[in-house]
Amino acid sequence: MTDYMLQALTKAKDAARQGEVPVGAVIVDRVSGEVIAAAANRCEQDHDPSAHAEIVVIRAACKAKGDVRLFDCDMYVTLEPCAMCAAAISFARIKNLYFGAYDPKGGGVEHGAQFYNQSTCHHAPDVYGGINEQECGDLLREFFQKLR
Amino acid sequence: MTDYMLQALTKAKDAARQGEVPVGAVIVDRVSGEVIAAAANRCEQDHDPSAHAEIVVIRAACKAKGDVRLFDCDMYVTLEPCAMCAAAISFARIKNLYFGAYDPKGGGVEHGAQFYNQSTCHHAPDVYGGINEQECGDLLREFFQKLR
Repeated sequence: MTDYMLQALTKAKDAARQGEVPVGAVIVDRVSGEVIAAAANRCEQDHDPSAHAEIVVIRAACKAKGDVRLFDCDMYVTLEPCAMCAAAISFARIKNLYFGAYDPKGGGVEHGAQFYNQSTCHHAPDVYGGINEQECGDLLREFFQKLR
Repeated sequence: MTDYMLQALTKAKDAARQGEVPVGAVIVDRVSGEVIAAAANRCEQDHDPSAHAEIVVIRAACKAKGDVRLFDCDMYVTLEPCAMCAAAISFARIKNLYFGAYDPKGGGVEHGAQFYNQSTCHHAPDVYGGINEQECGDLLREFFQKLR
């Protein structure tokens, strides 16, 4: 497992303990290898339907860099981004997107809107899906099983 | 012009004066008719690529209501939402979406991702486009002409 995806998974596990859907994300500076920000889904605790892990980590990384764009940065996230997050990743100019589990029901990269394939998408990251897919997906499946 | 779209336009004009792309949005309680929140695009000033008017106004309305969902609420926004915002509007459970100018280059409702037509969309608002289209579009055209 990549160290970066491991950090994203650790964030996702923290989220689960707080009753949040367990998705975690980190943003890495491609030059230094440094993790600029790490975050998890916070929709419930923040009363914010836009507070998916990807949006929260983009906001934190932009704040850390004092810029609205994250040039030369990669994102690692434990679940395929939805259309909202796929577009936000595009706007932030993320270079490479590494995601864990595929999301046929809600994904917007390989499924549904397939945002990066649209003519309305003006920057598409290089996408690598299925990274540590089993562990990322198991965490989500366990979380939703406990809710039933 | 509807009073609500006028309020969204006023917010958009405020944004232009601050160098932000002039898009404004308001969220209205369908029962009381009260404006719960009004906001404009704040991407540059907040260093936040997700801070489109729709996302900012959803965050503010959710905070005001102390809920992650905005049941029985409508949104008025001066521009066709992008895919990011279209999905956020879905997650927030907005009932009716009224938008001003169509956005063939970046829209995600009638163009591109057409998010509400996807199987990965689990709540679609009723959509009314082209409300006060001329004035909403003129504001954007003037803003971008001045930048050249």
